[in-house]
Formats: sequence, structure tokens, C-alpha cells
Amino acid sequence: MSDKDASEINDSAYVAGNGLLDRRLLLKSGLSFAVAGISSTASSASADSASDARPEWMQKPGDAFSNYGKPSSYEEEVVRYPAANSQVDGNGSSWTPLHAMEGMITPNGLHFERHHNGVPQIDPAEHQLLLHGMLDQPSFFTIDDLLRYPMRSQICFLECGGNSNAGFNKRPIGASVGYFHGLASCAEWTGVPLSVVLDEVGVDKKASWLIAEGADAFAMNISIPMEKARDDAILALYQNGERLRPENGYPLRLILPGWEGVMNVKWLRRLTATDGPVMARNETARYTELLPSGKANMFSTVIEAKSLITSPSSGMHMGEPGLYQISGLAWSGRGKVSRVEVSADGGKSWADAALDEPVLSKSFTRFRLPWQWKGTESVLKSRVTDESGYRQPERQELIRKKGRHGFFHYNAIVSWLVASDGEVTHTYDEQKNTESKLPDLDADWD
Amino acid sequence: MSDKDASEINDSAYVAGNGLLDRRLLLKSGLSFAVAGISSTASSASADSASDARPEWMQKPGDAFSNYGKPSSYEEEVVRYPAANSQVDGNGSSWTPLHAMEGMITPNGLHFERHHNGVPQIDPAEHQLLLHGMLDQPSFFTIDDLLRYPMRSQICFLECGGNSNAGFNKRPIGASVGYFHGLASCAEWTGVPLSVVLDEVGVDKKASWLIAEGADAFAMNISIPMEKARDDAILALYQNGERLRPENGYPLRLILPGWEGVMNVKWLRRLTATDGPVMARNETARYTELLPSGKANMFSTVIEAKSLITSPSSGMHMGEPGLYQISGLAWSGRGKVSRVEVSADGGKSWADAALDEPVLSKSFTRFRLPWQWKGTESVLKSRVTDESGYRQPERQELIRKKGRHGFFHYNAIVSWLVASDGEVTHTYDEQKNTESKLPDLDADWD
Repeated sequence: MSDKDASEINDSAYVAGNGLLDRRLLLKSGLSFAVAGISSTASSASADSASDARPEWMQKPGDAFSNYGKPSSYEEEVVRYPAANSQVDGNGSSWTPLHAMEGMITPNGLHFERHHNGVPQIDPAEHQLLLHGMLDQPSFFTIDDLLRYPMRSQICFLECGGNSNAGFNKRPIGASVGYFHGLASCAEWTGVPLSVVLDEVGVDKKASWLIAEGADAFAMNISIPMEKARDDAILALYQNGERLRPENGYPLRLILPGWEGVMNVKWLRRLTATDGPVMARNETARYTELLPSGKANMFSTVIEAKSLITSPSSGMHMGEPGLYQISGLAWSGRGKVSRVEVSADGGKSWADAALDEPVLSKSFTRFRLPWQWKGTESVLKSRVTDESGYRQPERQELIRKKGRHGFFHYNAIVSWLVASDGEVTHTYDEQKNTESKLPDLDADWD
Repeated sequence: MSDKDASEINDSAYVAGNGLLDRRLLLKSGLSFAVAGISSTASSASADSASDARPEWMQKPGDAFSNYGKPSSYEEEVVRYPAANSQVDGNGSSWTPLHAMEGMITPNGLHFERHHNGVPQIDPAEHQLLLHGMLDQPSFFTIDDLLRYPMRSQICFLECGGNSNAGFNKRPIGASVGYFHGLASCAEWTGVPLSVVLDEVGVDKKASWLIAEGADAFAMNISIPMEKARDDAILALYQNGERLRPENGYPLRLILPGWEGVMNVKWLRRLTATDGPVMARNETARYTELLPSGKANMFSTVIEAKSLITSPSSGMHMGEPGLYQISGLAWSGRGKVSRVEVSADGGKSWADAALDEPVLSKSFTRFRLPWQWKGTESVLKSRVTDESGYRQPERQELIRKKGRHGFFHYNAIVSWLVASDGEVTHTYDEQKNTESKLPDLDADWD
């Protein structure tokens, strides 16, 4: 409302530099958003007359019922962005459009994809899970068998170990936040605890690993420590209430809450109990990094804490100066998010954001903070601390640790530059030039 | 496993009649599910040889990436069931297939529908919300305006006041549980707290109601008490992370957590502050019941606690006797579910089910219990108690209270009859004949 502007905000409500406001104001009365464009002059008379002018969609019956719904045609730009490797069929990934989303759940149609050789179309009546190796009783399980077992649901994020790795680029990437950080999504997964099935087949005490293999043409395989398999691993059959989507492993997927995406094997067909890892391609030639010390970092399973502001973010354009909501996502593979701080002055001062309830372990957590944008150039950042006490690092700190071969598990603080004309771009603080290209696969990414 | 059968279950694990087992066994080791069909004879040798026989979908690259995913073609029967009124375009409802689902989230494509005159296809750039009536400053809000306001997310159920009303029929309906109770769904809704916008426009102290109106051809309207509007009502823009679906009110819907569906006005275009209800068709001629006392029950806003077992349920067929998971849903418009009990002997004895975490206020809660089915005729029931202390009533108790004009808010205990041959049907206990028809609209339902 133009006549209730920032001047009405009590000075004591500012909790950090450059206009950051107390998170408790979000749900309190008395905070007026100076929203440009509101026709605040609508008198009762003009309002009544306007209400008589019914739009065209009120003049005729609407569309019929549908068996399975889909988004509005006005939202057709809210899609996954596929970045496929032209050398290998079905190799690449598609990115969740986090910049166009809110809340913590990722709808199934927008959950990110990462495949090595395309999406197999599996007949669930033909699919079997084989458990063999160092077991008392090697066994096959059909999908119908598994559906009789006790289940458990968990809302948790999945994140590809290669997500956000454009952050290693020399210059800031110009992509929207979803096409930079969107190899991460969050869903409710339901299935049989792996520990229940392991008890059923009896595991040899010397078996310390399970080799998981998928039923895609790549026969994707990876080594899972038995301790994680017995802890909270799920043989997932359902995703957000319905059966898994094909691109997320239909009819059976391994879910390892909080661990990097590649280990959450899709189209799961085989679990082999062994006394050592299989040293698969995706844990040796890939998903391994040469460190500055000359040693290689392997089996970096857990996703460390990460946060990012999704609005405002790169590619958006602010309206008039005034009150805005800062909204973003935070998560950690080590448990719950305990704190998210936001800065509007490039990290000189920080304020605590409000965390949307429920805050769940190993799940996306939505954070929010009101911001009085004064129409001046500003750098927005967020940083998360998880319940283990780990705090998200600054970019220079991460790169110092990872060295020039860093490629995986990029989780540094993300900075957005808000120009005085309202244009929002990605920045590294030290340099403001941005590249305006979407993420490409490079030679290491196949 | 055929060699680890029910005989291994310790007698002390049974907690109620006819095979109900302690809910704590669900995630403990030592409980073997005697699942028929497991090839438990797979030796390491045969397993290895079987693993070499790769199915056809491993022999060639899979499908490409997609911008917006959809379910597997093998799940094409998992759909909403539309029951439309042939007399009026777009009047009727479509039912969520709860019998084919797990967990607590309803994916957007399967969220139930209830429309009076079809689904309008609204251009969000043209849509406006008008607030007028007894206000300091009558105002229009565009969708872009609302997107600048602080938001809040809530996972909550929506249930049509007419859901489950086939329970008033003289004979048990033979439909699957979703086509009997599936005018109820649960999603994460994100939007602007209505209280924030009401503060912005300033409400006259004498205004005790808000009349909400939708932008469909029916111009659906209904009266909302100001107290609820100021409490937890949301101007919802997002549903499970993405913008609302057209059939759920795109681009703007009122969400009143825990209150009957008809009040959660879709395609919201107008809120009029008044000092009394508007006495709309849907709060007088409909959604009103004549009680045995001769008085009429109106404005029955809150959804009372309800629970139902979704598996096993009507239309399913049990396999061999042995261990099964009983799984179901419970919810209450008054807050959290505090307890769900399950009976396998028609209500003679009850055992506490395990509640899946997180248990959220006014949300679906998934409950589960292991059951040793002995292959004998059994009647399964569930009953919920919510945090207000309210306990779901038996059918006869509800009908005694509602009388022969009962039509809305049917929330009685649901009974499934498991025959000795494994066939599962709906029963009223007292009579086992079922009708095998899907729900129809009748003259009162338009």
C-alpha cells in the first residue's frame, strides 16, 4: 500500500545491515508490504462495479474432470531443464526449477533426473530383487512380495554429488538457481526398511558391504556400507504417495537418506553382500577427487549442509523498493537444519531466518526473512548450520580445501547481486561479470 | 520365507485378538514375514546365473529425459474416478485412489476434485483478488502482488463434507476404499497468511464474516467466520512445491486447514467483509442436515476425526495365510491424531497402531500394524482418537445421532470383512451382502 511505507517500520525491527527485518515480523500484524501495483484506491463503489465485470472464464462452464491432472498451460515454462550428453544415449541430467517453486516438497513431475543410459520401462510383474552373496539364504523378491512387508515413510532430499559444481567455474554462472543447484529435490519416499529384508535373508557377520545394481542398460552399481544399509535405508516403492516414477527408479529404488544421489540406486535389481567395496566406475573414475595434498577423496557419501536463496535469485527482477520476502532452501545429510542466517550486505552482518515447520531430518527446510530493499546495490547470502554443528563454508574456503580438481559436493555460500535497477545476478563478490549460459556437461560428467 | 513361519512369533508379541501383533515389532529384527512366492531356494550359484539373464530393458538404452514426468504406463489404472452429474456441465467430483497409495502426501495429479460448473482456465496475469466490504481500504491484489508477501507452508488434508456418505446407505457399498472415502487428499500448501493481507487492508471491528467467492462459472460463494480467517487461513499459490493445479484453484485458493472442503474456495476472486453470513446455497440448501430433533445442522465447519484401513481393503484379495501389514490413514480437523487402534476381531479387542512420523496437525497420518492372518474369516476395523480427546464413533452411533437425513460428515468406523478365501469386502458387521457398484451422484448432490 503506497500510503503505508517503510517509514512505518519501527527501527528496532531491523536486525542486520541493509534492511533485514526480524523474522518474527513475518506472522505478526503491523508489517505493511509496500507492494507496487496494488490498486489501493478501489472504493467500495468501484469495487462493486468491478465485481460485476466477470472475466470470460466465468461466462461458460469450465473444463471437465480428469483422471490424472496436469499443471496449468500458463505454467509450461516451469519444467526440468535437461542437459544431455550428446555422445551417449540417455546420459546426463535434468534440473529441478527451484526458482519457480515454494515449500519443501518437489512434485514428482519436477524431481531431478540423473541417468547413465536412459530410463528403462520396467514391467513390475517381471522385475525381481535378488539378494545374494554372503547371506544365509540368497533370495529373490518380487514387487508383490515386497508389498506385503511393513513399510515406513520418510520425507527426505536427494542430491546429486555433482550438483552446483558450476560454483567451481572461474566466473559466476548466469543460470537460474534451479539450473545451477537443481540436481536436488525432496519427496516423501515409502517402502520397506532394508534392515527388515536383511534380517529375513540373514547376513554373514563378515559381510560389511552391499553392492547395489540397477536394471538400466548401464547396470549402474555402487557399494553401500552395511552399517548404512541397516540404519535407515529404504527399499522405496512409492514417491509422494503414488508408485515411483520411471525416471526415479520404478518399480524399486534404494533410498539412503542424506547420502549422495548416485548411491540411491534406481531400478534396483540386485544387492550382493560382500566384505569389501566393488570399486565400481562411479566410485573410482568418477565421484572421486584429487585433493591439493595429492591424495584422492573417495566414498564421500554424506551430503554436507547447503543453503541458497531461491527468491530473489539470479535472473529475477525486483520491482519498486520496499518490503520483500527472502525465501530459500536449506538441507543437511547429517540431520536437521538448526539455523539459517541471511545477509543483505555481502556477509558483513547476518540475521536469523524463520524456519518453516516441520523441520525434518535430512529434508529440505524452507527459510524466510522479510527485507526492506532500499533500491540500492545489495549482495544477498544465506548460510546454514546443521544439528551436528557444521556450518556452510564461504566459496574461497571450500575451494582452498578442495583444490583445482574439485568437482563434487560443492556446498559453498551462494551470493546474489541485486543491482540498483533491480536486476538480480549471481556474483562471487570479488567480480560482478556473469556468464549467461546454462550448465553444460563437460568431459568429466558422463 | 516358508521355513520361518508364524510358529516363530513369540506369544507375548500378540497384543489383541485374531493375530494382531505389537506395533514395535515393525522396525525390530526377528519378525519374519511368511511371504508366499519368495524363491527362497535361490542358491548362490543359481542366483549368479539368474543375474546374467538380463531383462530386455537392460539390452538397449532407455527413454530420454523429460521436461515434466508422468507415471509409468503400468500404473495407468491408478487414477481419480470421476462421478459427474450428467445434468450440469462440470458438476460432480473425482475420487483419489487411496487403495493404491501409501504415505501421507497426495501427488497433485491425484488430488480429489469437487466442482459445481467445471474447471476454469484462468490467465494469472488477468486474475485479481478483490477485498472489499467493511474494510478501511478496499483493494485489488494481483497474483504478482501476492507473490511479494511473506508466505507460510502447511501440509494439511482437504476433505469434502460429502465424503464417505455411502456409509449412510442401507447396504455396504462395494467400491474400493478410494472410491468410497477418496474425496480426501493431503498436500503441502504454500501461500500468504490471510491475516497478513487483512492487516494490510484494515478490517472494521464489526466485521465478523468474510464472504469468499470463486471465479468459476458457478461463482461458488461461502461464508467464513473472521476468527478462522485470522487464525490459520492461507491464500494458497503453491501445491506440493509447484503452482496450484487448475482443478485445485489455480492461480489462487483459500485454504482453511481442518475445515470442510467446500469452504476452501478455489479460483478465489473476492473476499467481502460483512457482519453476518451470506446464507449461500452451499450453506443452506446444501451442506445442511435435518436432525432427528427437527432442528437443522448448519455451518458444521470442522472435519471430525476419521480413520480407515487402506490395505487390506475392499476389492483386494489376500494371498496365503501369514504375516501382513495393516496400513491406513487417520486425520482430524481439530489437530493431531493422538492414537489409532486396530481390531482384527470385529471390535472385540483393539491394539495400538504405529503412527508414521511426522504426525502433523490437520494432516493425514499414516498408521501401520503387523497382522498374523490365520486364514480365517476376520473383520478389520480402525478407530482414531485426536488430541482434543474425540474418538471416531461406530456406525450405529453416528446414524443414531444424525438420523435418516444424514448426508454430510460421515466419519464412522469402517469395517472390512476378510473371507477365509482371502476376498476382502466392505461390511456393516450385521450383514455381509455388498453392492458392487461405484458411487453415484444422487439428486441431493449437485
